[in-house]
Amino acid sequence: LSWNVSYPEQAVHFQLLIRDLHFGLLFGMSDRGEFENADLAVLWSDGHNSYFGDAWSDAKGQLHMDPQQDYQLLGARRAPEGLYLLFRRAFSTCDPKDYLIEDGTVHLIYGILEKPVHSLHAINISAIHRGLQRVQLLKPNITVPELPSDMKTMEITAPDIVIPSQETTYWCYMTELPDDFPKHHIIMPVITAGNEALVHHMEVFQCAAEFDSFPRYNGPCDSKMKPDRLNHCRHVLAAWAMGAQAFYYPEEAGLAFGGPGSSRYLRLEIHYHNPLVFEGRHDSSGIRLYYTATLRLYDAGIMELGLVYTPVMAIPPGEDAFLLTGYCTDKCTQLALPAAGIRIFASQLHTHLAGRKVVTVLSRDGRERQVVNADGHYSPHFQEIRMLKEVVAVFPGDELITTCTYNTEDRSRATVGGFGILEEMCVNYVHYYPQTQLELCKSAVDPGYLHRYFNLVNRFNDEEVCTCPKVSIPQQFYSVPWNTFNRDVLKSLYGFAPISMHCNKSSAVRFPGEWEKQPLPIITKRLREPVPHCPPAPGPRPATPVPLNLGELRR
Amino acid sequence: LSWNVSYPEQAVHFQLLIRDLHFGLLFGMSDRGEFENADLAVLWSDGHNSYFGDAWSDAKGQLHMDPQQDYQLLGARRAPEGLYLLFRRAFSTCDPKDYLIEDGTVHLIYGILEKPVHSLHAINISAIHRGLQRVQLLKPNITVPELPSDMKTMEITAPDIVIPSQETTYWCYMTELPDDFPKHHIIMPVITAGNEALVHHMEVFQCAAEFDSFPRYNGPCDSKMKPDRLNHCRHVLAAWAMGAQAFYYPEEAGLAFGGPGSSRYLRLEIHYHNPLVFEGRHDSSGIRLYYTATLRLYDAGIMELGLVYTPVMAIPPGEDAFLLTGYCTDKCTQLALPAAGIRIFASQLHTHLAGRKVVTVLSRDGRERQVVNADGHYSPHFQEIRMLKEVVAVFPGDELITTCTYNTEDRSRATVGGFGILEEMCVNYVHYYPQTQLELCKSAVDPGYLHRYFNLVNRFNDEEVCTCPKVSIPQQFYSVPWNTFNRDVLKSLYGFAPISMHCNKSSAVRFPGEWEKQPLPIITKRLREPVPHCPPAPGPRPATPVPLNLGELRR
Repeated sequence: LSWNVSYPEQAVHFQLLIRDLHFGLLFGMSDRGEFENADLAVLWSDGHNSYFGDAWSDAKGQLHMDPQQDYQLLGARRAPEGLYLLFRRAFSTCDPKDYLIEDGTVHLIYGILEKPVHSLHAINISAIHRGLQRVQLLKPNITVPELPSDMKTMEITAPDIVIPSQETTYWCYMTELPDDFPKHHIIMPVITAGNEALVHHMEVFQCAAEFDSFPRYNGPCDSKMKPDRLNHCRHVLAAWAMGAQAFYYPEEAGLAFGGPGSSRYLRLEIHYHNPLVFEGRHDSSGIRLYYTATLRLYDAGIMELGLVYTPVMAIPPGEDAFLLTGYCTDKCTQLALPAAGIRIFASQLHTHLAGRKVVTVLSRDGRERQVVNADGHYSPHFQEIRMLKEVVAVFPGDELITTCTYNTEDRSRATVGGFGILEEMCVNYVHYYPQTQLELCKSAVDPGYLHRYFNLVNRFNDEEVCTCPKVSIPQQFYSVPWNTFNRDVLKSLYGFAPISMHCNKSSAVRFPGEWEKQPLPIITKRLREPVPHCPPAPGPRPATPVPLNLGELRR
Repeated sequence: LSWNVSYPEQAVHFQLLIRDLHFGLLFGMSDRGEFENADLAVLWSDGHNSYFGDAWSDAKGQLHMDPQQDYQLLGARRAPEGLYLLFRRAFSTCDPKDYLIEDGTVHLIYGILEKPVHSLHAINISAIHRGLQRVQLLKPNITVPELPSDMKTMEITAPDIVIPSQETTYWCYMTELPDDFPKHHIIMPVITAGNEALVHHMEVFQCAAEFDSFPRYNGPCDSKMKPDRLNHCRHVLAAWAMGAQAFYYPEEAGLAFGGPGSSRYLRLEIHYHNPLVFEGRHDSSGIRLYYTATLRLYDAGIMELGLVYTPVMAIPPGEDAFLLTGYCTDKCTQLALPAAGIRIFASQLHTHLAGRKVVTVLSRDGRERQVVNADGHYSPHFQEIRMLKEVVAVFPGDELITTCTYNTEDRSRATVGGFGILEEMCVNYVHYYPQTQLELCKSAVDPGYLHRYFNLVNRFNDEEVCTCPKVSIPQQFYSVPWNTFNRDVLKSLYGFAPISMHCNKSSAVRFPGEWEKQPLPIITKRLREPVPHCPPAPGPRPATPVPLNLGELRR
């Protein structure tokens, strides 16, 4: 599969090479990769004749011909290596049965027909061999910058450790730069080969410059043996999460490291997710840094937006689309950003397994101005660093509001915020320049108001929740009887209660100021949902399949 | 103005007779009769030439030509009595700028152009002479039944009383049927001439048959002088409210009165609304009953659905669309309806001044089945008894759910349920046959749960609400600080808390059974919003005005 995006035409041209065609194939898109309610291009053969058509599958997986044919077949060609199919699909067709191709993740699905079929209706979708590929179809047309001739590489990898036989491990490994390593710019961080299946995400942090030295350490991050000083290693140099591919810095910026005023000490943190509790697995995963001594115009930075990792932000069980929102307030950006502002050029969205959508919106003077990054078909298994279509300027006093949508229909107890894979996060790592001291601009509900919520649930529901101070917040959430009232009131609480702001420098130190019980940003004007642009209908298209002259299939 | 509805064509043909045309006119429809965001047919003249076109006005009242011309001019003809304009409009045009003609109230607006204008854009909508007429455009095509030859009339009117000089008065007047008046059927109740401007609504009730006599009374219904026995006069014989026109019983039914087992005593109740506190106004308003001795197949009945008149159901101030719902539960219909069910043939929706929409839905086995009556542009100034397009069958175990939408944007304190014009009601008087003992099937939130709400608001908002038991419920509502949390939680409460059911016979006696703390009906499947049926586009229509050959206007 390959594809070309034409922004002027607002259409995608797909080219499929089918190496071993049997009696046809299905190719298409659906909300999250399911074969029900999918929008499909279908090539099928009854053994003698072949047909191509635009179809859709209903909630039961039954295929139907689409009255409006929006997958336009442009060509079908046999070649020694297989059959080439070329077809075109507009981003938006204004056909309610069709998938709307948007900026974020697209779940491409495909299936192979192993037997001849006499019609579209005869295809049994549950019996076919099928697959899923997550892609960002509408990647912006950014040319890959030329790599400088003086480029060097450095690998920061785990030293052949044994992955603990438990579900969630955050592993910490301390390493250091060579003596007298001068300032360089990282221009491309790449994951090294390793146990990709068990690595959920990893990050390379630089330590705080105010300490002359840091102890060596190689062990779990939550161990009591871990020296406290490692908590001062929080400046992100490189990050990778499941599904992410190589990412290039734009020509005008690179991530500074080395040189005076910069610590030699680095901390590699790897989140291992080992649900089957494999024992004795060795790992040397890590990140390879491509860097140059030819400094670029700007030092780049990485900033975390969204929610603080705390159990006070929780999702009731059995929700199909529950929203949590984290704020980077005007007060924080006022204090931490330069007058000329910063420019965000890339973004990596991050949640754990319940995440379904993530969006960050820029708001100024109470009015939403611009979407920084949005993924309406977000998958936690596909967390790329994505270049933005256009660079977003953020000025002092602006607000950055990150909202995640979660699905907990398969869970029987509340999902709280935290580090575990079954706990949740709502984070947008934004890549920007010029670098500032602001490393983290996130929020969580005020714990005092959450305490009022538990009291309220307690009293309203006849003392069913234990709010004894000795019980942890997750335990209190687990004991809430989740009726519609308690669900609704939790939503209302998150939409009303003041927040605790984390407006932090890299050393986990807050900027000076009062950050507790801060008012929620007020939005007086929301961005409009974009109205899909419908292509002018090029005359009535027949709802009949297009016969193809491919000869008999199954050569 | 006259119009014809063609249901097969899904279109309305309007005929306008303009007796004194100056330089054109505007005619159209809008949500609630405003001239902004209106859908308009415009005839205008620059003094020499005349044009006709489909236009819309934006939120500022500026007129724009509609790219899709959906008011189709069919003819324009000068006659001695004036200019006739004939045009056609489909119910639904699928143009987002166009008004969707639905079953309920339609606010028709018109304006006269007093000066020549050179273009549509030159029309200043705020400067023109304008008017409003509320109608039900889509009245069902029910033929008026022939009136029987033996039809007689009887007037039940106030005996030249003096309307009290206060805003709200419910006046009670007792009268009686002649001695030995046999059973008859009321077939048409009509309001008599009177102080229509001050009469909000009136009803004729028949008293309970178990009492041999009732005291005479003529005075305010809430007076301490009113004999208690009058509370047993609650069986509705006829009702009228602002805007209602004559209403005919269908041929198979009539409202029984007279004869053995039926009380001779009647109570006329008139709700006077006298906001300007006029003094010394005399009134003899009342209802004229048309009745026949030729009994029809079924005795008809009137049943009240919706909310009990109690302050526990309240609307916060400043809401643009707040919903309150009243239930007639399966338990009540199970007990009170005959196995063969009842047939609802007409419905009168009733709220006070904040009401904007009313809908009653029939639900069976937890699934919504049918809309009984709905008005999405409901006006409290236009409360007709409306014949239903199709008779609705209701069986034991069915649920009737009535939801009212209120707008309190112009109010600074909460609006509670009650009898005053600034208090609210949510009622659907349904007319049905055969008559049953069920006079009233309404609900309100359980008062104990409302008390929990006040406690909760109190604690969550730092003791700002006084919930001392001596303070009335309206006073408690008035003291709530209406932040988003308190609003949201009130909504959640009404959507969650158990209800107190009024499942009453005509004598205000409840059917036997437990009616307090009843569970809310559970709806597992909602009715879909009807998808507007778009007429096939009859070729591209020009977005240019149609020139008319009318000669020079202003003869």
